[in-house]
Amino acid sequence: MADDKKLTTRAADFSAWYNELVLRAELADYSPVRGCMVIRPNGYGIWERMQRQLDDMFKETGHVNAYFPMFIPESFLHKEAQHVEGFAPETAVVTHGGGKKLEEPLVVRPTSETIIYAMYAKWVQSYRDLPILINQWANVVRWEMRTRLFLRTLEFLWQEGHTAHATHDEAEAETLQMLRVYSDFMEGWMAMPVVTGLKTESEKFAGALRTYACEAMMQDNRALQAGTSHNLGQNFARAFDLKFQSEAGEMEYAWNTSWGVSTRLVGALVMTHGDDNGLRVPPLLAPIELVVVPIWRSDDDRVRVLEAARRVCDRLREWEFRAPSRLRVHLDDREGVKPGAKYYEWELRGVPVRVEIGPRDVDANQAVLVRRDTRAKSTVSLDSIGEDANELLSEIQQDMLIVARERREENSHRGPITYDRFREVMAADGGFVYTGWCGSAACEAQVKDETKATIRVLPDEEFRSAEAPQKCMTCGSAAAHEALWAKAY
Amino acid sequence: MADDKKLTTRAADFSAWYNELVLRAELADYSPVRGCMVIRPNGYGIWERMQRQLDDMFKETGHVNAYFPMFIPESFLHKEAQHVEGFAPETAVVTHGGGKKLEEPLVVRPTSETIIYAMYAKWVQSYRDLPILINQWANVVRWEMRTRLFLRTLEFLWQEGHTAHATHDEAEAETLQMLRVYSDFMEGWMAMPVVTGLKTESEKFAGALRTYACEAMMQDNRALQAGTSHNLGQNFARAFDLKFQSEAGEMEYAWNTSWGVSTRLVGALVMTHGDDNGLRVPPLLAPIELVVVPIWRSDDDRVRVLEAARRVCDRLREWEFRAPSRLRVHLDDREGVKPGAKYYEWELRGVPVRVEIGPRDVDANQAVLVRRDTRAKSTVSLDSIGEDANELLSEIQQDMLIVARERREENSHRGPITYDRFREVMAADGGFVYTGWCGSAACEAQVKDETKATIRVLPDEEFRSAEAPQKCMTCGSAAAHEALWAKAY
Repeated sequence: MADDKKLTTRAADFSAWYNELVLRAELADYSPVRGCMVIRPNGYGIWERMQRQLDDMFKETGHVNAYFPMFIPESFLHKEAQHVEGFAPETAVVTHGGGKKLEEPLVVRPTSETIIYAMYAKWVQSYRDLPILINQWANVVRWEMRTRLFLRTLEFLWQEGHTAHATHDEAEAETLQMLRVYSDFMEGWMAMPVVTGLKTESEKFAGALRTYACEAMMQDNRALQAGTSHNLGQNFARAFDLKFQSEAGEMEYAWNTSWGVSTRLVGALVMTHGDDNGLRVPPLLAPIELVVVPIWRSDDDRVRVLEAARRVCDRLREWEFRAPSRLRVHLDDREGVKPGAKYYEWELRGVPVRVEIGPRDVDANQAVLVRRDTRAKSTVSLDSIGEDANELLSEIQQDMLIVARERREENSHRGPITYDRFREVMAADGGFVYTGWCGSAACEAQVKDETKATIRVLPDEEFRSAEAPQKCMTCGSAAAHEALWAKAY
Repeated sequence: MADDKKLTTRAADFSAWYNELVLRAELADYSPVRGCMVIRPNGYGIWERMQRQLDDMFKETGHVNAYFPMFIPESFLHKEAQHVEGFAPETAVVTHGGGKKLEEPLVVRPTSETIIYAMYAKWVQSYRDLPILINQWANVVRWEMRTRLFLRTLEFLWQEGHTAHATHDEAEAETLQMLRVYSDFMEGWMAMPVVTGLKTESEKFAGALRTYACEAMMQDNRALQAGTSHNLGQNFARAFDLKFQSEAGEMEYAWNTSWGVSTRLVGALVMTHGDDNGLRVPPLLAPIELVVVPIWRSDDDRVRVLEAARRVCDRLREWEFRAPSRLRVHLDDREGVKPGAKYYEWELRGVPVRVEIGPRDVDANQAVLVRRDTRAKSTVSLDSIGEDANELLSEIQQDMLIVARERREENSHRGPITYDRFREVMAADGGFVYTGWCGSAACEAQVKDETKATIRVLPDEEFRSAEAPQKCMTCGSAAAHEALWAKAY
C-alpha cells in the first residue's frame, strides 16, 4: 500500500501534509492531464457514500434525477450577461468532432444553468407544470490555473440541482431548504460543522440574485466553501424565455434555483479530520467501518486466531449501524505483513475502528477495539462485540463533530475588534473573525486587498454574535450586517 | 403529461413508434446540441435502478469503483494501433482551454482503456498488486453521424470495468464472469433474454484479443448488442508498459479485461417490452411499481374514495418486493383529470400495476388490480392487497421474460438453410438465423454486403443448435462454427 515513511506533520507544513496524505492513503492520484485527478477506490468509496446519502435527502425533499448533455453551444453561455463574465474565461472548448471543424464551438459545461433552463423553457407551459425539481450527478470542467487534489481540479464530480417555481417566495424557500439539507449532511454525516449565511454581492454566483453558502473551518484555520445554494431570481428565465401561464392567465417568467456540492467535500473531510497519522473518516462515510487484525506468532496460534477473527467478522456483519446497511468489516489476514505495519496502513486510510485479536484474547473470549479518532483502546467480550462496536461507532461519529466544533470555536474571534488587530490575526493564525460591516463594496475590497481575508458569509441568525456589532470595522460607520471573515481555499 | 393522440403502431412504423414513445412517455428529449439527448426523470429513474443493481452485482464479484479523467491526451489514443484506428475518427477534440490554444489537443474519452492502463502501469509493481478490479460510471463521447435516442447518441452514460491480472487464464475467467453478470442482469431484471457468445475478428473491440457479447432481439426482429466483455490480452499492457514482477521474479506484462453497458439498455427495454399503448417496465426496474387511481363522481364519494385510496397506498408501502426496498406506490389524486386520461398516461409510462378504487369498491372493501403487461384485471380484498400486489408483481416479472423469450424463439431459424432462403428471410421479416460458418472473413463480408445481416456472435454452448451445422451456408465448405446472424442496431 504505502511506504512506511512518516507523513509531514500538519504543524510543519499543512499543505504538504494534505498532498502526502491524499496520495499515500490512495484517495487520489495525479493524472497525465494537467490539473485532472484520478479518484482512486479509497477516495471514491467515500464519495459514493456521500452521494448515496445526499441523493436520499434530495429525494426525501421531492427531487428527481435527470441527465443533461455535457456540451453546451458557446452562444448559450452568452445569453446571461453576468454568467458569461463569470464562466467564459475558464471553459474548455471543443472545436472539432468526428474529424471536422464544428460550425459552432461547444463548451464543456462549467455548470449547467444555460442548457437546463433552455430545456425547461420547452417543457413548461402552465403553472400546472411547476415546480420542476430536478437534480443531476455529473462531471464539470473549469479551466483553473492552480489546482489541488479534490479542492480545485479542472474536471470534478458534483451534483447540481435546478428548480423552477411560480413565485419568488417558493424559489427562496427552496434555496433555503437545500442549504439546510447541505448543512444537515455536513454536520450529521461528515461531522464537519458549518456556518451558513448569505454571500455578498461580490462573492455571489455569476447570474444569481442571492447565493447562500456553507463555510467550514479547516485545521489550518482557513475557510472552505463546502456547498452553495442560489436563488437565481428570473435572470435565467428571462435569458432563456422560460415562461408560464399563471393561474390568473398571465404569462410570467419562472423563478429558478440551483445548488451544488462536489468532490471537493472529500478534501474538506481530509482537512477537517486528518491527523499526523493519516485520515480519520467519520463512521457514516467510511467504506470500511471496522478492520479486524489477527495477531499470531506460532503456526498453532495462527490457525485458532484466524478462526476466531473470522467468527468476529461474521458476528459484526450481523449488525447494522444506522440501518439498513450491515456493518462493513474487513479482515486483514495477509501473511508476511506484521500487525504494526497493518495498523499503520489502516490508520493512514482512516478506518474508524480497529479490532485486534491475539492468542490471549482468544483464550479470554475477548478482543480489543481501538478508536482511530482518539486511539483509545477498550477490551470487549466476543459475546457482546456487535453491540459494543455499534455503540463505539456512534460515539466516534458524535465525538468527531464535537471536536471539530470546539476547534472552530477556539479559532473564532467575536466581539469588538480594531482593523489593526484584525490584520494581526490574519497575518498570524487566521481563523474566523466576526465583525460589523457597513455593506459597502469599498470596505470589503480594501480588507481583501490588504489581508487576503474575504467575507465568507453574512451569517444566518443562529451563527451571529450575541451582541450585534455596532460599527463597520473598516470605516467606522454604522454596521448594516455582521460579517464572517476568513482567508479561504 | 402527453397529448391524447394514439401512438403510431409498431406494425405501421416501428422506428416512428419508438421515437414517439420515448418522447411522449418523457423518457428523453432532443437537446440543442446535435446528437445529444436529455435523459428526463422518467427515463433516468429506470437507468438509476439499472445502475444500482449492476453496481451491487459488480461489488458482489469483488469490484470497486473509481473515477478517471474524461480528457485523454491525443497521443495516448495512438499507442495501441487497432484502438486508434477504431476510435480516432469519432472523437470530440478540445483544442482550447482557459482562453488559450492547448499545446496538445485533448480527446474527450470515447472509452478509457488508454488513460486507465497508463495509471495502472504507475500503480503495479509486483504480482502482489494484482488483480486490480475497478469499475467506473461515466459519460463518454463518440461522434456518430446518425443518432437515435438512447440507442446511439454522441454522449452517453455507461459503466466501464477495467481489470488487470497476472495470467491469461485469470483474465479470461474475469471476461466470462462479467458476461455472465450482464446476461443474469438482462434476463433477471430487464426480463430481456439474450444470446451470449464470441464476436468474430471483424466485429471485436478495437484492441481486444477476444470480445464476448450479449445479443437481444427487439420486436422488429433486429438484434441489439446490449453489453460486451473484452479479453484485451496484453495489447494495452504492452502499449502502456504495464508490467509486474512475477512470483518467480520475472518482469511480465499484465493481462487486461474491459466490459461495459450503457444507457442504450433503456432503449433496449423499450424495444423489447413496449406495446402500442406505450412502455411496459418490468417491476424490478420500475421507478413506480403501482399507481393508485381513485374514481369518484359526487363530492361525497370523493372524500371516502380518496381516504380509502390513501389507506391502500399506506398498506402497499409496508410491503417489499425483493427486499430491502419498499413498494414504490404513487397516488394519482389529481383533480380535473378523468380516470381514463390517467390510465392512458400511466400505461404510456409503463407502470406495471394500476390499482383502481371507486365508491362500490370501498363499500365492498376491495380494489381492482390491472396488469400493464396483459391488461388482465383482478379484484382483491383490501385486507390482502399487499400480498396480492406483491405476488402479481412477481408474476409480471416472470411472464415478461417468458413472453420475450417466446417471441425470440418464434423468430429464430435453426437447421439447414440455403443462402437463397437466408436472403429471403433477411429481406422479409428478418430474425435470428443460426447457420454453419467456415470461419473465413470473405464469407462473412459477402453476407453482410448482400443482406446487411452480420454475425452477432458465435453462440455459447447453451444457445447452439441441437444438431451442429455441417457446412458453411455461403461457400459450402466444412463449418468451423455455428454462427448467429441478424440485422442489427
